[in-house]
Amino acid sequence: MSSPQAWSDLTTILRDLEAIDGAAGVLGWDQQTMMPRRGGAARGEQMAVLARLGHERLADPKVGELLDALGKSELDAVQKAAVRNTRRHYARATRVSPALVTKLAVAQSDAFEAWVQAKQRSDFESFAPHLEKLLELTLERARAIDPSRHPYDVLLDEFDPGTTVASLRGMFARLRSGLSELIRAVATRPQLPYVDARFPVDRQRGLHSDVARALGYDFEAGRLDEAEHPFTVGLHPHDVRITTHFYEDDILGGLGGTVHETGHALYEQGLPLDWRGTNVCRAASFGLHESQSRFWENFVGRSLPFFRWFEGRMKQVFPETAVTAEDLYRAANRVVPGTIRVKADEVTYNLHIIVRFEIELELFEGRLAVRDLPAAWNRRYQEYLGITPPNDAEGVLQDVHWSSGAFAYFPSYTLGNLYAASFGATLQREIPDLWSRIEQGDFAVVLGWLREKIHRQGHLNDAPDIVRGVVGDRDHVEDLLAYLWARHGALYGVTRP
Amino acid sequence: MSSPQAWSDLTTILRDLEAIDGAAGVLGWDQQTMMPRRGGAARGEQMAVLARLGHERLADPKVGELLDALGKSELDAVQKAAVRNTRRHYARATRVSPALVTKLAVAQSDAFEAWVQAKQRSDFESFAPHLEKLLELTLERARAIDPSRHPYDVLLDEFDPGTTVASLRGMFARLRSGLSELIRAVATRPQLPYVDARFPVDRQRGLHSDVARALGYDFEAGRLDEAEHPFTVGLHPHDVRITTHFYEDDILGGLGGTVHETGHALYEQGLPLDWRGTNVCRAASFGLHESQSRFWENFVGRSLPFFRWFEGRMKQVFPETAVTAEDLYRAANRVVPGTIRVKADEVTYNLHIIVRFEIELELFEGRLAVRDLPAAWNRRYQEYLGITPPNDAEGVLQDVHWSSGAFAYFPSYTLGNLYAASFGATLQREIPDLWSRIEQGDFAVVLGWLREKIHRQGHLNDAPDIVRGVVGDRDHVEDLLAYLWARHGALYGVTRP
Repeated sequence: MSSPQAWSDLTTILRDLEAIDGAAGVLGWDQQTMMPRRGGAARGEQMAVLARLGHERLADPKVGELLDALGKSELDAVQKAAVRNTRRHYARATRVSPALVTKLAVAQSDAFEAWVQAKQRSDFESFAPHLEKLLELTLERARAIDPSRHPYDVLLDEFDPGTTVASLRGMFARLRSGLSELIRAVATRPQLPYVDARFPVDRQRGLHSDVARALGYDFEAGRLDEAEHPFTVGLHPHDVRITTHFYEDDILGGLGGTVHETGHALYEQGLPLDWRGTNVCRAASFGLHESQSRFWENFVGRSLPFFRWFEGRMKQVFPETAVTAEDLYRAANRVVPGTIRVKADEVTYNLHIIVRFEIELELFEGRLAVRDLPAAWNRRYQEYLGITPPNDAEGVLQDVHWSSGAFAYFPSYTLGNLYAASFGATLQREIPDLWSRIEQGDFAVVLGWLREKIHRQGHLNDAPDIVRGVVGDRDHVEDLLAYLWARHGALYGVTRP
Repeated sequence: MSSPQAWSDLTTILRDLEAIDGAAGVLGWDQQTMMPRRGGAARGEQMAVLARLGHERLADPKVGELLDALGKSELDAVQKAAVRNTRRHYARATRVSPALVTKLAVAQSDAFEAWVQAKQRSDFESFAPHLEKLLELTLERARAIDPSRHPYDVLLDEFDPGTTVASLRGMFARLRSGLSELIRAVATRPQLPYVDARFPVDRQRGLHSDVARALGYDFEAGRLDEAEHPFTVGLHPHDVRITTHFYEDDILGGLGGTVHETGHALYEQGLPLDWRGTNVCRAASFGLHESQSRFWENFVGRSLPFFRWFEGRMKQVFPETAVTAEDLYRAANRVVPGTIRVKADEVTYNLHIIVRFEIELELFEGRLAVRDLPAAWNRRYQEYLGITPPNDAEGVLQDVHWSSGAFAYFPSYTLGNLYAASFGATLQREIPDLWSRIEQGDFAVVLGWLREKIHRQGHLNDAPDIVRGVVGDRDHVEDLLAYLWARHGALYGVTRP
C-alpha cells in the first residue's frame, strides 16, 4: 500500500471516529442538561450502540495494517503524531480480549452499585471484594495492553500519555512535603473571613455569561447551561458547551466553577482545526486540560486584580452589595484542611490527590491489600493534612472513580496544577504588565498566549513535551510552591522559611 | 437457521437501528433548538456518519437472509408486521444502486441550492432543469425498488404504506369538488373578524405548557422548546420533544402550533413500548401521524368548547384581555383563500394539497412537462381556489419539498385531515358527552380513546387497516365535508345544498 493511500484511508476512519465521538458528546451533554426524566433508559441504549460502533471502526484489523504501512513511511509531524496517537488507541481497543472487556464492564457496573450502597452505610467491607476484583481485572488489562511496562504507566497512558510513575513519584513527594510545610505555617495564623452574603441566582446568570465572554469564550461556538455537576463537552472546536451551578449563598463557588469550565472550553475552542480528522486536533492530556481550567480558575480567577475587575461587574448586577474585591480575594484563598477532596481549597487539594496516587501505586505494586485501605487512607490524611476522616464515607469511599474502574486518573488533577503554576510563572515574566491588564479586564493577552503555546499544539506532542516547549526546564513543583506561598502565605502573613 | 434464532438475530439489528435513529433524533433536535451558530458543519458530519452506519446495518445481506428465513416460518402478528416493515426498509436500502444514491444526493443538494436562489428571484426557469433531473432520478429509483408497481405507489410507500394512487385519486377528486362548493358558499357571506390583540410572549410560554399538559402530554417524558419552524421529535416513547413558536400579535397562530405538535407527541408517547426493537413500535404512517396532530389542532383545538375552557386559562394569565372564547372561535375558523399553503385555513388547506398531488401524478405519469408546471399550477389555483399567484415564488416555488426530492409526501397532509374527520365523527357517536367534557378541560376520554384505538397499535397494521378497524367503512371524504360544513358553514351562515 502506498503511503498517501494508507494516510487517506486512515484519516477516513479517524474522521468517522471524530464524528461518532461528537455525536456521543451531544447525547451525553443532553442527558445531563436537557433530557426529560424518563429518557434515561433509551439514552443508555443509544450511547452503548454508538460506543460499540466506534469500537468496531477503531478495532478493525485494517487500522493495524494502515498503521504498519505508515510506520514504514516518510511522515510529516502531523502524520507522525496521528500514527502515534492512533497506535495507542488501537492497542487499547484490540489487545484486550472481548471476554476481559465484558468481565470488566460487569465488574464496574457491580462495583458502582456496591459503592453507592457502601458509601450510604459507610461500610467499606461490603465494597472491598468488588474493588479487589476490579483491581485484578484492571491489572490483567494493563498487562494485556503492554506486558513490558509498569501497569500503572500503561493506565496513565489513557489520561496523560507521556507521564510515568517515575516522574510522578519524585514530583509528588517533593510537593507533599512542601505543601505540608505551608499548611503548618498557615495553621499558626488566624483564619481568613468568608463572604457571608446572598446573591439571587436569577441575577447571577447574566454575570457568569459576562465573565465567560470576557475571558474569551465564544458563545457563537458554545453555550452555558446549568447542571448538577458542572462539566464541559467539546463536540468540535466550533461547538464547545459549558455548564455551571449557581449558589445563592456562595457566589464564589459558582463563579469558580464557571471560570474553571471556561478554562476547559477555551482549550477546546482553540484546538487546531486544520488537523481535524487526524487524531491530532484534540487535547494532549487530561492533565494539560486541567492545567487550562485551573490556570483560569486559580491563577487568574482567584487573584486580586481579577476580583478588582469582577467587582465592577458584580456591582452593576448587584448594586446593593457591600462585598468588595478584597473580601472576595480573602475568601477565595482560605486554607481549610478537610477530609473531602471536591471541597478542598487550592493549597490542600493536591494532598488529597497525592494520598490517592500513593495508595493506587501501592495497590498496583502489590504493597497494599484492599482490606488495609481504610487504615492506609486515614493514616495519610492524619500525616499530610492533620485530620482523620470521621468515617469511610467521608474517607476512602468518598470518590466515585475507583468504583467505575478509573485508576491512575487522579494524578491528572495535580499535574494540571503543576503545569498551570509553570505557565503562570512564565507568563508573568514574559508579560510584565500582566496583572494590570487583568485588572482592566483585558484577558486577550493571556488567552492569546495560551492559544499559541498550548491550544494550537493539539496533540502533536505529548503533554510533557508541550509544556517543556513553553516553559523550558522549569521545576513545576517549585513553581507551584512559590506561587502558593506568595499568594496564600502573604494573605495569612507567613513567609517561606 | 431456526425461526427463533432468526427472530433473535433480526431484533438485535432492529434494536441497533432504533438506537441509531434515536441518537440521530437527538442531534437533529439539538441542531434546531440548542446548537450554537457555528456548530452546523460538525453536526452535518455527525449526522451523515450516523446515517451511513444505520444504512450499513440495515443493508447488510444478513438482514435479507433473516427475512427469507422468517418468511418461511410460523409467525405471530408482531413478528409478521416486523418482517413486513423491515422488508420494505431493506428493499429501499438495497435495491437502489450506490451510484444512484450518490447521484440523487448530489442532485438534491444542487436542486435545493437552486431552489433557494430561484425562489428569491421568482425565477422558475433556473430551477426547472434541476427539477427535471430529480424527477428522472426519482423515477429511476422507484423502478429499481419495484418495477412492477406504479412509481408513485412505490414513493407513497415511504410515507404512507398501504395507500395507493388508486385510492387517493378517487378521494381527492370528490374532496376537491366538495371543498370548492363550500368555499363558493362562504365567499357570498361577510368575512369573520380576526382577533386584534397583543399577548406578551413571556406570559404565553406558561400558558402553552399548561395546554399541552392538560391535553395529556407527559413532561416527564418530553419538553417544550422554541424553534423557528415548530416540529416534534420522538426519540423513544419516553423522550418525545415538542417545539413551538410564540407570536405576540397572533395568539391563535402559536397556540395552533403547540396543539398540533402536542397531537404528534401524544401519538409518539403512546406507542407500544412492549414492541420496541421490532420495527412495530413506531407510527404506522405520516398520514396517520398527521391525523393525530390535526385532530387535536382542528377538531378539538378549534372547537367552541375548547375555547371556552381555554378562555379560563387565558384570563388567569392575561386578566387584562377582553378577548372571549367566541372571538377566538370565529377568528380560528375564518376561511380565506390564499396562495400560500402553510398560511391556509382548515377548509382551503386541502385544495393546496390536491393541486400538488395532481401535478405530481401528471409529472410521474409523463402527462406534464416540467417547463409547463407554472401554468398548470396557476390554472388549478384559479380553478379550485379562485385565485392566481402573483408570481412563481408565491406559486409553484413556494414549498421546499420538491427541491429536496420529497415527492408523494404532500398527500399525507390531507390523508391526516381525512382520517381525523372520521375519528371525530366516530368519537362523537361513541362519547355522547364529548363536548361538555372538553369544555370542562377533561381531555382524558379523548386521549384514552386515541391511545387504545391508534397509538397502541404502533405499526402492526398499515394505516388504512388501522383506520378501518377504528371507524369501519366510513367515507372519510363525506366525514370531512360534513364536519367543515357543520363548523365553518354554520359560522358563515350557509347550509349545505
